Parts: sequence; C-alpha cells; structure tokens
Amino acid sequence: MCGFSLIRDPLPKADMQPERLALDCRGGGIATDGEAMNWPPQPLPQISKAQWRQKATDLRMRLLQLQRRLRDADFPLILVFGGVDGAGKHEMANQLTEWLDPRFIQTLAYPHPQELPPWDVPMLRYWRDMPPKGQIGIVLSGWYTAPLLSHVRAEIDENDFAAQLRQALHFEQDLVADGALLLKFWMHLDADSQRQRLQELMADPMTLWQVQPRDWAHLHSYADFMHSTSLLLHESEQAGQAWQVIDGRKSRPRSLAVAEHIAQALEQRLEKAPPAPQIPAPAAAVDRLSSVEQHRLSKSSYAERIRQGQGQLFLHSQRLRALQRSLVLVFEGWDAAGKGGAIRRLLQALDARFLRVHRVAAPDAQELQQHYLWRFARHFPEPGRIVIFDRSWYGRMLVERVEGLTPEYRWRAAPAEINRFEEQWTDAGHMLLKFWLHITPEEQLARFEARRDDPLKSWKLTDEDWRNRDRWAEYLLAANEMFASTDSPHAPWVLVGANDKRQARVSVLEAVNTALSAC
Amino acid sequence: MCGFSLIRDPLPKADMQPERLALDCRGGGIATDGEAMNWPPQPLPQISKAQWRQKATDLRMRLLQLQRRLRDADFPLILVFGGVDGAGKHEMANQLTEWLDPRFIQTLAYPHPQELPPWDVPMLRYWRDMPPKGQIGIVLSGWYTAPLLSHVRAEIDENDFAAQLRQALHFEQDLVADGALLLKFWMHLDADSQRQRLQELMADPMTLWQVQPRDWAHLHSYADFMHSTSLLLHESEQAGQAWQVIDGRKSRPRSLAVAEHIAQALEQRLEKAPPAPQIPAPAAAVDRLSSVEQHRLSKSSYAERIRQGQGQLFLHSQRLRALQRSLVLVFEGWDAAGKGGAIRRLLQALDARFLRVHRVAAPDAQELQQHYLWRFARHFPEPGRIVIFDRSWYGRMLVERVEGLTPEYRWRAAPAEINRFEEQWTDAGHMLLKFWLHITPEEQLARFEARRDDPLKSWKLTDEDWRNRDRWAEYLLAANEMFASTDSPHAPWVLVGANDKRQARVSVLEAVNTALSAC
Repeated sequence: MCGFSLIRDPLPKADMQPERLALDCRGGGIATDGEAMNWPPQPLPQISKAQWRQKATDLRMRLLQLQRRLRDADFPLILVFGGVDGAGKHEMANQLTEWLDPRFIQTLAYPHPQELPPWDVPMLRYWRDMPPKGQIGIVLSGWYTAPLLSHVRAEIDENDFAAQLRQALHFEQDLVADGALLLKFWMHLDADSQRQRLQELMADPMTLWQVQPRDWAHLHSYADFMHSTSLLLHESEQAGQAWQVIDGRKSRPRSLAVAEHIAQALEQRLEKAPPAPQIPAPAAAVDRLSSVEQHRLSKSSYAERIRQGQGQLFLHSQRLRALQRSLVLVFEGWDAAGKGGAIRRLLQALDARFLRVHRVAAPDAQELQQHYLWRFARHFPEPGRIVIFDRSWYGRMLVERVEGLTPEYRWRAAPAEINRFEEQWTDAGHMLLKFWLHITPEEQLARFEARRDDPLKSWKLTDEDWRNRDRWAEYLLAANEMFASTDSPHAPWVLVGANDKRQARVSVLEAVNTALSAC
Repeated sequence: MCGFSLIRDPLPKADMQPERLALDCRGGGIATDGEAMNWPPQPLPQISKAQWRQKATDLRMRLLQLQRRLRDADFPLILVFGGVDGAGKHEMANQLTEWLDPRFIQTLAYPHPQELPPWDVPMLRYWRDMPPKGQIGIVLSGWYTAPLLSHVRAEIDENDFAAQLRQALHFEQDLVADGALLLKFWMHLDADSQRQRLQELMADPMTLWQVQPRDWAHLHSYADFMHSTSLLLHESEQAGQAWQVIDGRKSRPRSLAVAEHIAQALEQRLEKAPPAPQIPAPAAAVDRLSSVEQHRLSKSSYAERIRQGQGQLFLHSQRLRALQRSLVLVFEGWDAAGKGGAIRRLLQALDARFLRVHRVAAPDAQELQQHYLWRFARHFPEPGRIVIFDRSWYGRMLVERVEGLTPEYRWRAAPAEINRFEEQWTDAGHMLLKFWLHITPEEQLARFEARRDDPLKSWKLTDEDWRNRDRWAEYLLAANEMFASTDSPHAPWVLVGANDKRQARVSVLEAVNTALSAC
C-alpha cells in the first residue's frame, strides 16, 4: 500500500483543459484541428432511471437480435476501447458480456508495454487473439496503449508516435480489408471528473483498492495526456476506422451512446456489405526466376561445405538463443524442388529443442474462420527459437491466386499486408529469410517421372502436382510478381537454383549463415 | 568455447559397466533385476551397405503404407526416445521424417528443465503438443529428461525420482487409455563408444561443434548415469508402455531395429484394437448436493459484502501476480444456476489484462481429434494470471456420461485422470478451485419460466435445458459421484447454495478470497 502516499501530493488544477492543437510538426504533418470529430466530447446529459430502463431494454433486444444475425455472417465484430481509466472501458466490456450471449464474446486486454521484454512482438499477440467470423472481440488496453503512454512520458518524439500510430492503423486496416467490422471508442473524462472520481473512491475504504498510484500520476500529467490524445485521435482514424469519442462521466448515458453506435453500425453492415475496394495495380515484375543460375556441385565439395556450413549454423543458433532473438525461415518453390531435403540439412545442425518445422496444408475449418495471417502468426517462434515454414502465407499470392481461391482484390492487397506483417516481426529485432527453390520445367518433369517410378516416393506425387505443372506459366508470373512486391532488405527473398540438389542444399545453408552472421 | 577445457580432465575408465541393481529402497520398492528387459542392451551386429539398402527399402515401404492406414485410424502414434546423446535419438527423428510423409509427423523436443522458471508446468506443454489422431509425434528429451538429470546430479533422492517417474508413467497411461499407440525407445551407448565418438568428433574441426561441454561432463558421471538409467527403465514401464532398449553404436542396425519395432507394433494395432479395459468400480458417493444449504441475503448485506470481497480479491490478485502464481477457477452447476452472474462479480474486481474467461462449448472438429484434456490444457494461464472456465473438463463426467457421448469405461477412468491432471498444475505451486452452483429443481423451474417469459433472456433457454432438466436424477448421481472422486485438498469442490443469487455471488467471491489468502 506504500504507493498510496502519492495522494498527499498536490492535486492538479481544475482549470486544465485539453488544448486545441493545430500542429504541423512533421513533413507529412499532424494537423489536429478538432473540427471533424467530437473532441473534446460534448457532455452527455444524465438520464433518469426510468428512461434508462426503457432505452436499455430496447437496445439489449436490438443487440441480441443483431448478435444472432452476426453468428451467421462472414465477418467478426471488433470493438476497440481507448481512453482514460474510469471512463468506463472495463464496465462497457462487462456490460456487453452481460447483455449478449457471452459464448461468442471475448474480452482482450494486454499487459502494459513496460512489463514486456524488449524482444516481444505485441502485434503477433493481437493477430493470434482476433475473434473468428461471427464473433465479437472487445479490445481493452490494446494497440494504442503503448504509443500513448510512451508519448506522454516523452520516451518517443512525435515522429515515432506518428509511426507507431500508423502501424496500429495499418493493422486495423488489414482486419477491415479482410471484412472485419471494426468500431473504435475513445472514453473521455475531464480532469475535474477524474479527480472527483478518484477522491470518491478513496474516501471509502471499500473502494480504495480501485485507485492505483498511477491513476494520480496520470491525473498530474493530465495536460500531457490531452495533448497526446488529441494527436492520437487525429492520426489514427481514416475512412472505416473512425473514433467515436464518448463523454465517460456518467455510466447510463455513456452505455447507451456506445451500445447505440454498435447497434447502428452492425445493422448497416448486416444490411449491406461494403463495396469491394479497387484492385491495386500489379507491381511491375521482371522475370527474376528465369534468370536464376543453375550450378552443379561435386560430391566432395558438397560434403565439405555442408560440414562447414552446419558447424557455423550451430554456432549462430547458439548466439541467437543467447541474444533471445528468433529466426523464421520460409520455404517456397516448385513442387519437387527439394524443399524437404534442404530443410533436413538445416535440422541436422540445429538443436531440436529450440526448433519447430511447420508444414502448411490447406486451412482447416477453424482457420477458415480467421484472417489468413492468423494461422501463421500462431506458429511464430518464442524468443531465441527458430521456426521453419514449409510453405507459408505466400500461398495467398501463389496457389490461392492461381486456383482462384481468393478474389483478386484480396490477393492483390496481400503484398502490402504481408510486408507490414513481416515488418512487425523484424522491427522487434527478429529475423526472417525467404527461400524460393527454383528448378526448370525439364528438371521437374524428370523428378516427377522418377517419383512416379519409385515405390518409395510415388506417394509424394499427386494429381495436384501434375495440375500445378500445367499452370507453370501462371505460377511463374505469380512468383515473379511476388518477388517484386515482397522482397525487402529486412525480409529478403533468396532465389536458389535447385536443379542440382547438392548445390541447392549448400546454397540454402550458406545463405542462412550469411544472414545470421549479420545479427 | 571456454567450456571445452573440460576435455583435459582425465577420461573415465573403459571398464565402467552398468551395475545390475537389486535395490528395494522404498516401501513400494524399486526392484531392478535387469531380467525382463534387454538391459544393458545386446550389441547389434553391423550390417553391410547392401543389406542395409535392401532392408531399409522394405521397411520404408511397410512404414509408408502403415502411415497411410494410420491417417484414417482413430488413434495417434507417439514415439518416445530416451537415452544418451549420440546414440541416435535425433537421427532417428530425422530419418523417420525423411522416410515418411512429413506433413503428419511432428518432432517434439523441450528445453532442459534447468532452463525453465520454477513455476513452469512441463506437463501442460506435453499435453498441448500431443499429436492428433492419425498422426505421429516423436518426443525427444521429453518427460524423462528432468527426472534422470536431477537424479544423476543427486538433486533428488530415490523417492522423489520414483515419484517423478510415476508421474511420467501416469501421463503416458492417460494417453494410452485414450487410445494412443505409445512406443518407447531407450538409445544406449556404452562408455567406450561414447568416448570414442566424442574423440572422433573433436578430432575434426568441422564436427567439433557437435560436442558440448556437457557431453564430457556426462561421460565423467557415466556410472551414475547407468545407475539412474537402470532405475528409470525399471520404474517407468508397465503393460503397454514397455521400453525397447537399443544398442545405439551403429546407425544402420539401430535404425532398422527401431523402424522394425515401429512397423510391427503399428501393424498389430491396426489389425486389432486393444480390448477395452475393465470398468473401474464407481466411487461410493454420498448425496452431498441435496444437503447443500440455501440461505438468503439482504440487499444491503449483499452490497456491503460484495464491496468488501471485491477489494480483497483485487489485492489477492496483485499478490498472485507478484508471486507469478496462477489461478484456475472452474464453474459447473445446473442450468440457470447463475454461473454467469457469479463470474461477472469476480471480473469487476480483476484486471482484465491478466484474466481470461474461457467458455466451454461442444468440442470442435480439431478438438475431437485430441485427448479430451488437450483442449483445456491449451487454455491454462501463464504465470501470474487467472483463467476462469465456465464449464470444464468435468463435462466428461456430466454431460458426456449422461448423454452417452463417451463409453462408460472412459468416463469411469476420468476421475483418476483428472485428479492427476489437476495435480500437475497444483504441484507447480498454482491454484485451482472448483465451484458447483446448486439450485433446487423448483428454483430452476421458476427461473426457466422467468427466462421463457422475458424477451431479454429467452435466448438463454434452449430445448437442451429442458431435456437436461428431465434428467435431473441422472445428473444428480453423476455430480455426487464426481464430488466423491475428485474433491481433494489441493483442488477442492466448493458447493454453493444458489437459490438466492445474492448469496451465491457472495459465497463464490468469499470462497475465492479464502483460498487465495492461504497462498
């Protein structure tokens, strides 16, 4: 209880009011004029108990019916709550869970960013937690908490603040683009109300526990909070991701305001799906694949380089573990290009305790209810570990495109989404390397025939392989566009000539070592 | 590389031979006579390259076909490898992954127990990782590593060693009882071969990296290892869970021996499912439920005790977090008994960031492919957190029993399985409390009718609820037997009279506080 001594500090003055900002502090400019949005929010008038009973009952009925319709819809509802403690975020989550069928609602809240280790990737956790289609996720203290607190404490400048908000906005945008209905509420308390609330809670020993030392600290820096909040609200909204700013002083009117907005938005969305966005123009792609060089490697050089490479890889992996940095390797390539053999040469040098190989098959029923990146985010490694993806999220731009499993506007959007997803990973100091094992059509034919005739390998060859082969040209275009749009310094594509298996295995091993030696 | 100075220490003598033990060191007695099992293993003769090629090809074909049949079977294959580093565990995992379709094999390996925090629950990780039906899990450095190393290092005495081995054996037994085919291999190297292997690896700078300082340390304590291994092998096998001890000196014969055993066991099992075990006798159960007292609580006492209780709960939860201990709360009870309301009174006092409510519905397709405890083990909390299960693994002994969803010999086995499962959790210092909210049939009828007539609540009432109500007597018996067989000091059942909602909520809150105040 020692922290409570803070209450003896002088209280902030009542007249602290949110500033109306008209900054243009960067090139792109945070320009907050407070015109478009309800900020600071209009006070909500109190509602009598009788009125409340009537209106709340109506809203509950509406929401219950909407939740039932949502169950069969092909999108999730994501409710993001930001704002001050005590302005009703937590209470709204409890109330919605009480009003609706709780089996299909999940409240999602996250530790304060300071409690996390530096190598943590919060976005991965958000990805994993997102609700499936037909369900509701209520996000408390989510992706806006860290940027806001860091900026209030002056740990980051306005450029970094804006960059972090852009990342949050992009994450939401990826959810919305996949169909999610995302509603954002900012729950506000003015300084007077906040102070009054804390004083009332502390006056009663039974509710004293609800007041944390940091509540007073936050009240002390109320002006800073308001400044940062203004920036945040204006920087983190765009079409389809607008903030509803709610006066949080009184629980009845704020509950009605939030619930009413949810009901309206859900009704609208269930009536009419948003129009499919414009299809982004394809990236200009050179034919990188056809110019991949094919070399041969002698048996003796192979043995020597594998041994040397494996020794280095083992040492690199130990350093990686000591640094608590993680490595993700992605393997893509033509059927029969030798992904399995190349992966096994890596496994031989790595400690199985810190490694998983994730082999990607078609999504199962549960995975189909989620954003396509969800099923991969689930398998990203813990700190100091390695995960190898044998096929990956790039299926979106390969098989899903060529086989028409995903509409064009969605797979055309994939490069931007994937680049951001990978950046979230590498920005936290982790590593990502992507291999394409390339064989020529002639070599593939020879391997297919060999597989067909070898009873030990014939199971590897399926009708699908032959069908894919017929679509070589389509896959070639898809792959080249994929390289053009998703090759980046922090997550590069390595194109490996794999007509010679020995050369391919050595190339992969040595490329991994080269990348790791830079970390 | 400094650790390598260890190699200058004198090497262990070649004549160190495993002791043949005939200890009877405890009441129950570790009695190891080395008669029944191949220990120490018979040396396997070398096999020529030509022979190898022929035999390996035959075995691969057999295993491939068996894997295909396994895909459609209703059980998983779990391969447990124990033994010395260098005796081929790792290589066997890689080889099987190469021989078979790797999409349906997962290699599972775990950090050394010393690398884990004290509050870690390794068994939970094993539960979560077990392969689904039709697939293969290869366990390297699994549940035998910690007991063996601890005993070799004299960190635990023989009683604790035996207790830990029993726990491992019980875990396997639970998998086997659920249908898993579990095969255990102990890969052995004699001291001479081990020393020779390390020397050869170190003589070549290219393979030097494969030798760890701890390899030499282990060789130094070879006699201790052999002693502990003898105890381990004899203490951790029983019908259906026998060890195959394999001479690991030469890779070809050891590969064939392991693969041949897998093929034979899988063939046998696919031919003929094991007979259903005898049905355990039901526990004698008193009718505890009918004697649960029903009290009423006034509105004012209620408000007072809720406020007081929530204050205490919040403080307890903070201590729990500081101690990195976790809490699991289970809610069971009659339909309409008020579980949701009681849970919400807890939520109001807890920080959403460290809490999840897991509401249990019927198992989905993925969950049906797994042991019934798997889907709950996945949701147990991280250190310092709380998870509330709204319905739980006790469904096995309630709805699955009454509705005939699970054969009798399986739900009769559940109490022992569940007690062990819960013990794994509480043994690690975490807490578990189980609530049954009890209402009388008359009260339930009144609530059903009120729900039916209230448009805000009618969705809560389903045909299933009425059907369950018709089976009141069956559920009553099932519940009473459940309390009799799964009430334990470390994971007690709290039976709460819930005819009065206020009283029920206060009782739950105060019971949680009482339990937490002891931690």
